[in-house]
Amino acid sequence: MKQVILPRPFKSHKGNFGRVLTIGGNENYGGAILMSSSAAVHAGAGLVSCATDTKNLTALHSIVPEAMFINYQNDVELVNAVDAANVLVIGPGLGTDATALKILQKVISNTNTKQFIIVDGSAITLAAQEPALLEILATRKTIYTPHQMEWQRLSGIEISKQNNIKNALKQQELEATVVLKKYHTTIYHTDGSASQLEVGGPYMSTGGMGDTLTGIIAAFLGQFHFKNYEHVVDAAVYAHSALGQELAASKYVVLPTDIINHLQHFMSNYVQSTIQK
Amino acid sequence: MKQVILPRPFKSHKGNFGRVLTIGGNENYGGAILMSSSAAVHAGAGLVSCATDTKNLTALHSIVPEAMFINYQNDVELVNAVDAANVLVIGPGLGTDATALKILQKVISNTNTKQFIIVDGSAITLAAQEPALLEILATRKTIYTPHQMEWQRLSGIEISKQNNIKNALKQQELEATVVLKKYHTTIYHTDGSASQLEVGGPYMSTGGMGDTLTGIIAAFLGQFHFKNYEHVVDAAVYAHSALGQELAASKYVVLPTDIINHLQHFMSNYVQSTIQK
Amino acid sequence: MKQVILPRPFKSHKGNFGRVLTIGGNENYGGAILMSSSAAVHAGAGLVSCATDTKNLTALHSIVPEAMFINYQNDVELVNAVDAANVLVIGPGLGTDATALKILQKVISNTNTKQFIIVDGSAITLAAQEPALLEILATRKTIYTPHQMEWQRLSGIEISKQNNIKNALKQQELEATVVLKKYHTTIYHTDGSASQLEVGGPYMSTGGMGDTLTGIIAAFLGQFHFKNYEHVVDAAVYAHSALGQELAASKYVVLPTDIINHLQHFMSNYVQSTIQK
Amino acid sequence: MKQVILPRPFKSHKGNFGRVLTIGGNENYGGAILMSSSAAVHAGAGLVSCATDTKNLTALHSIVPEAMFINYQNDVELVNAVDAANVLVIGPGLGTDATALKILQKVISNTNTKQFIIVDGSAITLAAQEPALLEILATRKTIYTPHQMEWQRLSGIEISKQNNIKNALKQQELEATVVLKKYHTTIYHTDGSASQLEVGGPYMSTGGMGDTLTGIIAAFLGQFHFKNYEHVVDAAVYAHSALGQELAASKYVVLPTDIINHLQHFMSNYVQSTIQK
Repeated sequence: MKQVILPRPFKSHKGNFGRVLTIGGNENYGGAILMSSSAAVHAGAGLVSCATDTKNLTALHSIVPEAMFINYQNDVELVNAVDAANVLVIGPGLGTDATALKILQKVISNTNTKQFIIVDGSAITLAAQEPALLEILATRKTIYTPHQMEWQRLSGIEISKQNNIKNALKQQELEATVVLKKYHTTIYHTDGSASQLEVGGPYMSTGGMGDTLTGIIAAFLGQFHFKNYEHVVDAAVYAHSALGQELAASKYVVLPTDIINHLQHFMSNYVQSTIQK
Repeated sequence: MKQVILPRPFKSHKGNFGRVLTIGGNENYGGAILMSSSAAVHAGAGLVSCATDTKNLTALHSIVPEAMFINYQNDVELVNAVDAANVLVIGPGLGTDATALKILQKVISNTNTKQFIIVDGSAITLAAQEPALLEILATRKTIYTPHQMEWQRLSGIEISKQNNIKNALKQQELEATVVLKKYHTTIYHTDGSASQLEVGGPYMSTGGMGDTLTGIIAAFLGQFHFKNYEHVVDAAVYAHSALGQELAASKYVVLPTDIINHLQHFMSNYVQSTIQK
Repeated sequence: MKQVILPRPFKSHKGNFGRVLTIGGNENYGGAILMSSSAAVHAGAGLVSCATDTKNLTALHSIVPEAMFINYQNDVELVNAVDAANVLVIGPGLGTDATALKILQKVISNTNTKQFIIVDGSAITLAAQEPALLEILATRKTIYTPHQMEWQRLSGIEISKQNNIKNALKQQELEATVVLKKYHTTIYHTDGSASQLEVGGPYMSTGGMGDTLTGIIAAFLGQFHFKNYEHVVDAAVYAHSALGQELAASKYVVLPTDIINHLQHFMSNYVQSTIQK
Repeated sequence: MKQVILPRPFKSHKGNFGRVLTIGGNENYGGAILMSSSAAVHAGAGLVSCATDTKNLTALHSIVPEAMFINYQNDVELVNAVDAANVLVIGPGLGTDATALKILQKVISNTNTKQFIIVDGSAITLAAQEPALLEILATRKTIYTPHQMEWQRLSGIEISKQNNIKNALKQQELEATVVLKKYHTTIYHTDGSASQLEVGGPYMSTGGMGDTLTGIIAAFLGQFHFKNYEHVVDAAVYAHSALGQELAASKYVVLPTDIINHLQHFMSNYVQSTIQK
């Protein structure tokens, strides 16, 4: 994992570092997509657009003016934004009502095989009931980021019966990467391998932590171009928890906004310590 | 009190740390419920939802994107949110008009005996005139957090005549914990005992301090599971004032938002100093 | 001046530290009243309400959730708020249109002789043309805070001809304190004396600096109870500029929000250095 | 370049440091004009007004209450604001639709030859197709700040064929300064000379960086009064990148808001190091 965060090539422009589109945030859960978007900006994505409810426009600009706004109920705007992106995050705060499903379908059906798609939160719950969507996602570079209950919905495996073998079997059927968020998160790769996180802890058990992770994965995929992109996913998941662990030295709980605020410094330290070795 | 803030168990998830619902914030007093919600998030609540006027949605997300929004005038949303919570705060910035009363009634009548209910500010003023509500609250794990004038309204005891004996008698009738906020706040417990605060001071005499306290009590009740939950209330009240006192070393007045911003660090220090002993 | 900022009495509550009402902020100049309100909160006012355009509600709560909101176009709300206040600031960002004049008249005609009234910015421009208002203000504890052009409008003395003698003569006619903001601000007291500021500098020449000053004066008047309240005004003006000068050691320009953010620390240092002497 | 940022003259007021008007920010790209405005405030502009969509009012005040708001769809307000300004920024987040073009035309046709006009982003794309606008701009103190694709649109020179000679020829036709943003930004002056930046790097490749630059150029032009104003433009471009380089020592990516937050300190250091020499 330590070989992912690298110094940037000198001759480059923001397009080289990813065009991230985050999609989610209904009237009730706007904060989720704002944290995902802000995490993507702070983790180094070149350009970030946030497709969300118009109610979240002002909070988006107030929190992270670097991000652009898309009205996710405007079909033309939404489809254009999907077209223009090379990394998508869908799900944080999306909800599970009819509007959410319509948006999810509109987005997934307009993606292409070159794009990375991070499917999180309520988008997992919705997709679990839509075989047609799962089928499309199986042909994409899809990363699911469920917690255990969402994984139960997606995999059909009850939480108490989830284990590495059962999880991997189901994940292989999905033909996608699965980041299963739990005490020591496990990442199931498309080649059948898995990696388990040894960092992080209960100080990170706060609403919004998972939303923040999606933004970091998106930013990493947007800017670190490796043959095996799942190494980049691993690195993002690692960075998220390792930073949480670092901050927990002086904070009883670590909040998503704490992670966001320290990403740039954490990544800088990382590169510098790597270079010294 | 020093035995309440403990290191978190390793195997845990955000559900273990409390589902807090804060209810309040009309058009005039939105800041009150935002500070309560933000304090709950920073004090470690696993999940925080804020039921408030739609006018406060954007400020909520701008200040604390970790919190979720509930339109408190939408009965279905509100009742569902009450159902899902295990700790409720009602009152900060709620106001005392007909809408406020309707919301208070809707909330209280939908609570159950497992939930903690922190009744603050205008909710105390309103409840003082509604025997039916006081009756329900007497059967719940209720914590009233009045200042002296609100206590006068609730207890019928004039400020000049309030003393420990009279206060305790009335509090026992209410069958609830009473946190009476004044110079050296006193907490009257349901078993008839009382504890008095020796920390804090006039640098904390600012609008919003009490709102912030409600969020801390809620977060503590949500995450620290003790047989005698009133010890947890004591600890929360202590933490609030002890942190204020600490910050007053370098600030002429300590603001609610200062308390909120330093909670995570304060709690971390606390755990570390406890472990060393 | 050094005897104004004192340690707070132990037995006290937020009512002892002033109920400040700030009035201003139309659609174009909302930031002005937000900075005034935020300065009042940070300078230690016990309770701060901001009467402004509904368009500024969300930004108010986002910047300073400690402040309460009043819709300044709602006559009942506004008059009640004026009644409840003991210090008023009127003018920052108020504008000079018919609505502004109506609000100014409504406010001034509802004040009483116990209240302090700080008249700033466009309220000065408007009042200059309304003898009836100047007459009421002459019977109140009024503090005008004009810059030189506003003073020209209020006094009739052209900027190039403004000098201490002419200014004092006109100020005596107004029967009010005048804080004339310029290079080395001069304060003309009701007893005919004047004091001139020796601190501050061009690094403070930024839009919003004067708005911030009004909040500091208001907070000081609300909490420091001296027989001669004009000493308190002097102290507030001094604190504003002395803090600016301190911050200018490491900032090329000092912004209003910088002043606001450092008020609590500055006042704390001040008290501590006074005590040591 | 080092002779531009100078200590401020003691006897001065905010009018001496520039009246900056930023114009842009539609529903989708509001953050762009907010960052431009905030950069102008932090870089020392005396007064900053932001003409933008009403949807951006609250975020503007939340981020930078020092700035004033103009509804850019209100013709009277907009023209008055153009009249009152001595430096204009047009383009950040303006978009390229009919509304954007109408606003651009309204603004440019109301400018005068004493004003500085910084033309950025979508305003460049729009102006490239409007010879009448280019003609007016040729008679103004215009600074274009294109990235390479926008320069292709404005100059007709494909990116792959852009070089100093071709660029300078076209720039001379435009009779304007051109700040061509790329790896080592080049500034083409009206006298035919050019300067190339040796600082900055890929850590600055984030959406919003260019918007931030426009605010810095505007603030510098507003406050540093040199015969050859293009030296001031050079200094602003240098400051932007030099500060970015400084911050990159501890941040993997440098965000526009980082630049904004450190401008005052950076400029202070600059003056102090200059004085010591």
